[in-house]
Formats: sequence, C-alpha cells, structure tokens
Amino acid sequence: MDSPERKIMSVLNGKTVTPPPVWLMRQAGRYLPEYRQTRATAKGFLDLCYTPDKAVEVTMQPIRRFGFDAAILFSDILVIPDAFDRNVKFVEGEGPQLDPIDEDGIDKLIMPDIIQHLKPVLETVTRLRAGLPAETTLLGFCGAPWTIATYMIAGHGTPDQAPARLFAYQHPKAFEKLLSIIADASIEYLVAQIDAGADAVQIFDSWAGILGDHEFDAFAVKPVRRIVDAVRTARPSARIIAFAKGAGYNLKSYRQGTSADAIGLDWSVPLGFAAELQKDGPVQGNLDPLLMVAGGKALDDGIDRILTRLGNGPLIFNLGHGITPQADPDNVTRLIERVRSFRG
Amino acid sequence: MDSPERKIMSVLNGKTVTPPPVWLMRQAGRYLPEYRQTRATAKGFLDLCYTPDKAVEVTMQPIRRFGFDAAILFSDILVIPDAFDRNVKFVEGEGPQLDPIDEDGIDKLIMPDIIQHLKPVLETVTRLRAGLPAETTLLGFCGAPWTIATYMIAGHGTPDQAPARLFAYQHPKAFEKLLSIIADASIEYLVAQIDAGADAVQIFDSWAGILGDHEFDAFAVKPVRRIVDAVRTARPSARIIAFAKGAGYNLKSYRQGTSADAIGLDWSVPLGFAAELQKDGPVQGNLDPLLMVAGGKALDDGIDRILTRLGNGPLIFNLGHGITPQADPDNVTRLIERVRSFRG
Repeated sequence: MDSPERKIMSVLNGKTVTPPPVWLMRQAGRYLPEYRQTRATAKGFLDLCYTPDKAVEVTMQPIRRFGFDAAILFSDILVIPDAFDRNVKFVEGEGPQLDPIDEDGIDKLIMPDIIQHLKPVLETVTRLRAGLPAETTLLGFCGAPWTIATYMIAGHGTPDQAPARLFAYQHPKAFEKLLSIIADASIEYLVAQIDAGADAVQIFDSWAGILGDHEFDAFAVKPVRRIVDAVRTARPSARIIAFAKGAGYNLKSYRQGTSADAIGLDWSVPLGFAAELQKDGPVQGNLDPLLMVAGGKALDDGIDRILTRLGNGPLIFNLGHGITPQADPDNVTRLIERVRSFRG
Repeated sequence: MDSPERKIMSVLNGKTVTPPPVWLMRQAGRYLPEYRQTRATAKGFLDLCYTPDKAVEVTMQPIRRFGFDAAILFSDILVIPDAFDRNVKFVEGEGPQLDPIDEDGIDKLIMPDIIQHLKPVLETVTRLRAGLPAETTLLGFCGAPWTIATYMIAGHGTPDQAPARLFAYQHPKAFEKLLSIIADASIEYLVAQIDAGADAVQIFDSWAGILGDHEFDAFAVKPVRRIVDAVRTARPSARIIAFAKGAGYNLKSYRQGTSADAIGLDWSVPLGFAAELQKDGPVQGNLDPLLMVAGGKALDDGIDRILTRLGNGPLIFNLGHGITPQADPDNVTRLIERVRSFRG
C-alpha cells in the first residue's frame, strides 16, 4: 500500500519532493565500522545474507546512523544463481565465484523453488518492514537477467564479461533460455519480496554498458520489461527502479523499453542528458561514489550540480554506483545535510 | 600531403567512400601467428616497440596478409610515461606496471626530450611510410592525457581507474599540471610522427567512459582539444581521429569539443546515435571485437547492420575496440570481403 509519508514512493509516483529523498547504493557496507563488526560474526558473505538476525542488523545500521529515506534489503544479486544450485561462493579479496554453466548445463537447468530457497531473505524483509520507521521506504532488489547471466557463464566477474557476450553470439538459443529462466525466477523473487513488505524494488543491470546496440535491446531491455510487466500485473502498488549501469545514450529508450517507474543513472551520465531523461519520469542518482572518499569542496560542488540540474523534478538522490569501503562516514553525514538543505 | 588514393584520408576529409575503407584496432597483434613469432624474438614488449626492424615487421604483417586500408604504427600509449622516466614495464599476463606518481612527483615532473627518447619509434614511422603501398594510409597515435594520467597515478590498470579519479578530486591543481604536461609531450610526439610520415593520428582515450559529466569536459575534452589545435596549427595536412571509449551520450559534444576530424565509436554506441553523430562528420567503428572470435552469421549480421546504417556516409570501418588474441584470422578475411562487397 502506498503511504503518502514515504517520500521515495511519492517520487516513484512521479511527484517532485523538495528536498529530494536520499539513499545510497550499498549503504550497508564495509565503510561502516558497525557493519564490519557484524560481518566478522558471519562465516561468509552468503551466511550474512541468509541469517535474518544479521541481515536485518546490517540493513538497519545506516538507517539508525544517517536516517536515509530508504532501507535496502541486505542481500546479493547472486542469491538467484545460488538458488539455481550454482555453488556461489564469495572469496575474500577475489569477488564471487560460482560453477560456470555451458550449453548443456543450460539445457538441463530447471526452475528451483525460489520461495523455499530464499526463505531467510524473505524473512529479513518481513522483519525489516516491522522494524523500520513508518516514513522509511523499504526497497527489495534483484540483478537483471543479463548481469546474472554474465556471472553464471563466466563463473566469476571479468573486466568486460567477454565470456557471456561470446557465448550469446555462439549459442543464441541457449542464451535466450538462460535469460528467460533467470527472468522467471526474478519475477517470483520480487513478488515475494513485495509480499513480505518491500514497497519498491530495484533491478540492477551492472553490466548493461558493455552490450552493443542490438544486444542491449535483446539482453538488457526485453528481459527487464518482462519482469516489470509481470511484477506490476501481480502487485500493482509496487514500484520498480531499473538501473542499467554504463548504458549511456541507450538510456534514452531504456525507460520506455522497460516501462520501469524510475531509472537509475550512473555517475557518467551527463546532467544535461539526465535532465532530458527526467522529463519522461523520475530519475535516481548520480553522484560519483569517489566523492564520498574525497569529501570537501569537490563533494559539495558535485552535490550542488545535481541538485541544481535535477532537484526541481522527480529525483531520488543517490550515488551513481555503490559507496566504496574507503568512503568516510562523515562525508555521508555531510551529503545528507547538504541535500536536505536544498529548497528548490 | 594529401593523396587522393588514400581512402581513409578521403573519409577524414569528409567524403563518403563506397565501400568504406577498413582497418582494425590492434590489427598487429597476438591473434596472428606471425606476430607471436616476431614477439618471441623480443626481450619484452617495449623492446618490440623500440626496435624498428621488429616494429616495422609486425606493423606490416596484417597489411601483407589482409591488405587493410591503413597501417597503424606498432607501439604503445605508455611510451609517453616511459619518456617521463616512469619505469614502464609490461609484465606477462599482468598488464603494464610503472612507478606511480604523487603530488610531489608531479611537482617535480619536467618535459623530457620526447624526440630523443622516442627516436626508434619515429624511425619505425619513416621506414613504414617507405615500405607501405602508396594507397595505404599510415596512422600514428598516442594516448589521451586522461588515459595516460590514470596509469601514471595508479602505476597499473584498475577496473575503474579510481586512483586517478580520486587524485583529481583531492589534488585538482597537481592533476591539471599532469594533464597539461602530458598534452605538451603528446603534441611534440604527434607532430614528430607526422613529420616522419604518418598521414593521420589517432588519440586513444580508453578510460573516458568512467568520467562524470564535469570531469569529462575538463579531463577528456579540453586536453584533447589542446592537442588537436596545436597539431593542426603545426601540420595542417594531418588528420586527427579521437576515440573516447565508453563516452556514451557525451560523444554528442565530443567532436565539436575536441574539433577532431573523425570520432571513433566503441561497440556499445547504438547505431541510431552513430548515424546522428555521422551527420556532423566522419565516424570510425564500431563492430564488437568478440565477433572476430564468434564468426559465422553473428559476424555477418553485425557487419551488415553497421554498413546499412553508416555505410552511406563518411565511415572508416573498424572494430569498437582492439581485436583480441582469441580472434580467428579467417574471420578477419571474412570481414574484409564482406565490407568490400558493399555497394551502398
């Protein structure tokens, strides 16, 4: 249900809120000493995601400390491949690793019981909604099928996800099935998050930017459109943010193509272009995360440029990508104060 | 001097040539067995660049095998930091390494004798022009100041060049000096390449895509503009291609901002946008390099889409980034035949 007090929901409904609401991607993370403390009590990163006590705690930490307008479920986009039994592991300092899948493996891939597998994550969502202040929006999320597929094919992250791009050229039918089954799983997962208490969900397409024109439409737009349509039909009150990192000029057609309620903008999106995109609906972004390390005048100037260009339209203030472990929590305080002092 | 027979020079002068001329970024490279053979005779990668006999040989190999419309000097963008005595090394399987520079180091940085240091490279250019068929354009090149600076600051490549981005926020004055001195060195270097026989030069800004709006203008556009203006004033017959990889929507202002004769397009640039950009002047690109691995129908379709959208305007057919070691030389033959059979 839509609460008029949840500012982010107002923006997602197309309204201009002044000052704009603010949250930060990866706001529950290693830059916070309290996060590192909780993290140290978990056996591994997935253990943290799958233990509601701990996942609730780390999700709440930045809300308590900074009073963001949204809490985002603490989890990872790779819980979906994990539900597909791809043996997902987070190796300290090396990033995620999973069993790479080939044509044959895709052929044999069957839909897992998403709700059963991700029960602890859904339990976290329920507890969060119960524990959060009424005015705080609760965001769920998942990875976009293309981004999830890049990890499933390569078995790890790569500088340009060449393995998945090459696989898609060489085995178009198998790749289509892979995107399709990931989309099916994501629909179930997002609907379940909404039922558990998420007000809105974000679909992260971290690797959209390395796709060619034709592939962007086929791999980044169409599967996300399917998810948006299905989630919206199932749960009309939910709102959906789609974030295609590095999509550049392709963002022009991305909102209409995906029909998402809002689009996320990475820090490389020029503000003149962002203002054009905002004419068609709400945008979220797009401060360079490194400014949370740099601080000072560079930070203030970066914030002011965004507020000046985008603050008088439907805007959710955010970074252009996740906050980094090197960020100074004091800079987060500074950012929130500055954004909240904006008067239009 | 401008030769009417050199098709790439015609395109760079704004003419539509049918079929479009073609060359491939990194066309002298590890996908060729003859390259690997010559490479094995060199002590290291820089040794290959600094030994005219070997550098001429590897530059000529793809011309002999495929008859490309351009030969590009075999060298590396990091010869400029090497001229600045930054101790550049290419470590097998690890990418380039150099001594990272800090604020103090930048303060002490002085212009080296570029011509003296890069004498063997210039000797290679001279010998190439003498040995190349008259109809083959000879391209020189350098890295753009921003991209060179990212390596000089970090001391190696990183996934998102965060060290240089952060340094620029924290030490704006020092960073400005660094860009400026790299630009000075690049001007001297490019003019010397032209004097040695290069018809045109390409400026590679491989890391332009991770810059924010404001930084794109300050770090990617302005320093390249300075180089273009200075080179053009010194050698009016030379033509200049600027390639800002990942620049996305920013390409809209990049040509005018840099005043380059042609702009390179990476494979993520949508063809509709590319066609818009082509209205303002010649473009170069933009096939996904992985299609040179995949081959087959995917390759044919990719080529045809570019020819259909861009083939009837000033176009230099190329990849959207360098050809990879995994590419099949037979796919290069296939590409050239297909491009050359285009009748408009």
